[in-house]
Amino acid sequence: MNYAILFKLQGFIMGAIAFAFALSLGIAMVYDTHSTHELAVTGFGVSFLVAACLSGGFLLLGRTGDNTLFRKEALATIGTGWLLASLVGAIPYFLILPDVSFSGAFFESASGLTTTGASVLSDLETLPRSLHFWRAISQWMGGLGVVVFFVAVLSFLGAGAKVLYSRESSAQAADLNTSRVQDGVLHLLYLYFGLSVICTVVYWICGLGWFEAIIHMFTTLSTGGFSTRSGSIADFANPALEWAIIVFMAIGGTSFLLIIELLRRNWKALKTSTEFKAYVVLILSFSLLIFIFLVTHSGDNPDSHGLIRAATFQVISIMTTTGFATVDFDLWLPVTHILLLALMFIGGCSGSTAGGTKVIRFIVALKVSGQHIEKAYRSRVVRALKVNGKSLSLGEQESIVVYVVILSLIVFSGTVIVSFLEPNMSFEGIVSAMAACLFNIGPGFAEVGPSHNFAGLHAYSQIFLSFLMIMGRLELFALLVLFSPSLWKRF
Amino acid sequence: MNYAILFKLQGFIMGAIAFAFALSLGIAMVYDTHSTHELAVTGFGVSFLVAACLSGGFLLLGRTGDNTLFRKEALATIGTGWLLASLVGAIPYFLILPDVSFSGAFFESASGLTTTGASVLSDLETLPRSLHFWRAISQWMGGLGVVVFFVAVLSFLGAGAKVLYSRESSAQAADLNTSRVQDGVLHLLYLYFGLSVICTVVYWICGLGWFEAIIHMFTTLSTGGFSTRSGSIADFANPALEWAIIVFMAIGGTSFLLIIELLRRNWKALKTSTEFKAYVVLILSFSLLIFIFLVTHSGDNPDSHGLIRAATFQVISIMTTTGFATVDFDLWLPVTHILLLALMFIGGCSGSTAGGTKVIRFIVALKVSGQHIEKAYRSRVVRALKVNGKSLSLGEQESIVVYVVILSLIVFSGTVIVSFLEPNMSFEGIVSAMAACLFNIGPGFAEVGPSHNFAGLHAYSQIFLSFLMIMGRLELFALLVLFSPSLWKRF
Ligand SMILES: [K+]
Ligand SMILES: [K+]
Repeated sequence: MNYAILFKLQGFIMGAIAFAFALSLGIAMVYDTHSTHELAVTGFGVSFLVAACLSGGFLLLGRTGDNTLFRKEALATIGTGWLLASLVGAIPYFLILPDVSFSGAFFESASGLTTTGASVLSDLETLPRSLHFWRAISQWMGGLGVVVFFVAVLSFLGAGAKVLYSRESSAQAADLNTSRVQDGVLHLLYLYFGLSVICTVVYWICGLGWFEAIIHMFTTLSTGGFSTRSGSIADFANPALEWAIIVFMAIGGTSFLLIIELLRRNWKALKTSTEFKAYVVLILSFSLLIFIFLVTHSGDNPDSHGLIRAATFQVISIMTTTGFATVDFDLWLPVTHILLLALMFIGGCSGSTAGGTKVIRFIVALKVSGQHIEKAYRSRVVRALKVNGKSLSLGEQESIVVYVVILSLIVFSGTVIVSFLEPNMSFEGIVSAMAACLFNIGPGFAEVGPSHNFAGLHAYSQIFLSFLMIMGRLELFALLVLFSPSLWKRF
Repeated sequence: MNYAILFKLQGFIMGAIAFAFALSLGIAMVYDTHSTHELAVTGFGVSFLVAACLSGGFLLLGRTGDNTLFRKEALATIGTGWLLASLVGAIPYFLILPDVSFSGAFFESASGLTTTGASVLSDLETLPRSLHFWRAISQWMGGLGVVVFFVAVLSFLGAGAKVLYSRESSAQAADLNTSRVQDGVLHLLYLYFGLSVICTVVYWICGLGWFEAIIHMFTTLSTGGFSTRSGSIADFANPALEWAIIVFMAIGGTSFLLIIELLRRNWKALKTSTEFKAYVVLILSFSLLIFIFLVTHSGDNPDSHGLIRAATFQVISIMTTTGFATVDFDLWLPVTHILLLALMFIGGCSGSTAGGTKVIRFIVALKVSGQHIEKAYRSRVVRALKVNGKSLSLGEQESIVVYVVILSLIVFSGTVIVSFLEPNMSFEGIVSAMAACLFNIGPGFAEVGPSHNFAGLHAYSQIFLSFLMIMGRLELFALLVLFSPSLWKRF
């Protein structure tokens, strides 16, 4: 392990956190000065100081680090980076809200930075504006971090969580000063900032005030799902806004590299993207299915328009792992829960801000399985496995298949562990709490459904679920490798 | 496809069914002559005629078949064999019980022959003896068929569902006349019959009458789980019997090849069997865990002896996929359901009569996953993966990992399909119905818990779940390949 570059990059990450704390502090000084929010300014002041000192310290420790990043350091950076940022990000919640425990604050902070959107807070309307801002911008930064790290840096390295979005061959090490990596990062930044501006304006046109437009932009594009309202998007009772959010959630769940290609008028990219086509087909078919179940079970005069909007909104919200709600889908038929849970497992496209297994991995797993069934009786047939217009090597197939196995084992053991920590929680609550955190969705069903939150859980459950969020967000490997002692050896 | 040998083997299978029908007919003629059971003799008479004619027809069609079995024919034989046997096996239920639909009869029959033990029948005490006999012997034959086909024939072929119990190298074709295959089959038959005799005598000593001793022997060794009593084993209120059943269920879930080695006093086999050691550790640890949850939640004066027996019984019953019950575990804490569900997924040892994923596949999946996590940052490290004392080739590893993926996809899509067919069923009911059938357990939780049955389900659900039972019993491939058109080509 090259510790210098690890420290240097932690310094940058902590610097970004400090910057966000500074903005929140500014908002606190302007808006949160009345007595019920007296702790906001102090809270963000202290938080800023901690983050700034840590950033400075790390940069000092890492001043000798060059810009060459090996796979090992890249994984260790995002693994420790997200953990540390979640810890520091918990400080404002802990200091400003007197009835939030530290495990709760850590949960809320990890939920923000991993763009999960699960919450321990209720009565969101009483929160200071500055805290709303930090909650939301932590998701926006988390989403940006995922896109930059996974698409630009890790795909360049061909690291662990195998990387279909990259058309380039993988390299042993990435020099962060080379134009190829920097170009990639720059294009993604332009796109993310551009979409952010457009999204904010559209939300404002739909009737949101500037502050809430920005907040919900932060949490839509990142597929984070935090809202300023306890009732999530339902509280606005604004169909136009709901359609606008549907569009921007769908964009957030699409591969950002594909969007860049489309902006370059490379329409062929649309045609070759197996993943995007499957993503669209899944959204349309699941929306239709749920709509049919809702219409046939909603009495004599179903509000078709409202139901199709509600079905589409929930399907896209869950599949892109955003987690906004316009209705309490916990009250829908059980079959719709299974359909939504299936979408939780699938998730959005690779190279997007969405969580979940990712559509492409499902496609590959299905294709590999089909080939193996054929192999059972025709052992000598070898077929190329094509996806997104290119053939997958056996190594790439193996990597994806093993990823699915590891994920299944985590789902399996995660469910068992949550059931231990919460012995009285219902079966549906346990499974959906695990899935909602691991796949970075936010709300689950039953005890953790959209009209409830995670505050009632034990401290250990909150901490364990926070780890699941970070593990899911980092596509498993970056957190799992931290537990390998040999990672930490100095070369 | 070589149709001659396929027909010939179907003729043998149907002949075995006809033989079992003949025995049931004999019992019906002796015991079921009073008016409430007037249909029993006719029912088994007709069933016997159908099976005998089919058997004769198949043998006639297959008279030119030689004894060389290729992988293709072996898979097609067990796939069509179990389907056809389940259809013919449904006839007595349909003819003798006037209020059982054909889908229900098919479900009951498939549940018997796949050793699942899920039932559409209630008030078992009112069934004619001959029908009890057929229900139970269908499980015993199903268990024997699985052991013979999977251990002796398929392991010899190295076919589809990859085969760790075999120490021999896999061959392209198996000549059923060779002494190696015949020896393997003979040893297994001796063991199965020997255990059957011992088990019957032990149950009789524990206080069961001969008839019920034989019936429960049939359904214990095969890990089937049908009982003569509506309340399953709980109805006997006999602790000694419960301990005896615990022992024989555990034997049924152990690799029969390992038992043969141990009978030859080859104690080294015990030491090298990674799978058996894990099986024992899982049984002991899960029994202890559930016992602790039961004791701490059962008031002031817990009956420790009863609780440890209940916990051990349920753990072994579920892990060996037998499905007997001594208590209504649906009333236990939710956490115990998750623990039992986890055991359903794991299942028993390979080469046993148990269902589930099989312990060995879990071990391999875990080991491969661990290696891949290390690979994420140390791409050049290659380690041998050892299990049961031998190294697994990359092909064997791949085969097991893909098996786990296919199983996960089936669990996933099976849950979605059951939820469609039963839109009002609870989440826990849906998941456990799917798992209880796919993994050949029998009872699930909630609507399909031990105090309920599968009679209330729609016909389509019963048929779909029957397919899941057969698919699970045949380790997926043998049923899945039947849907490949190219399997059916004449060479
Ligand atoms: K989310
Ligand atoms: K069973």
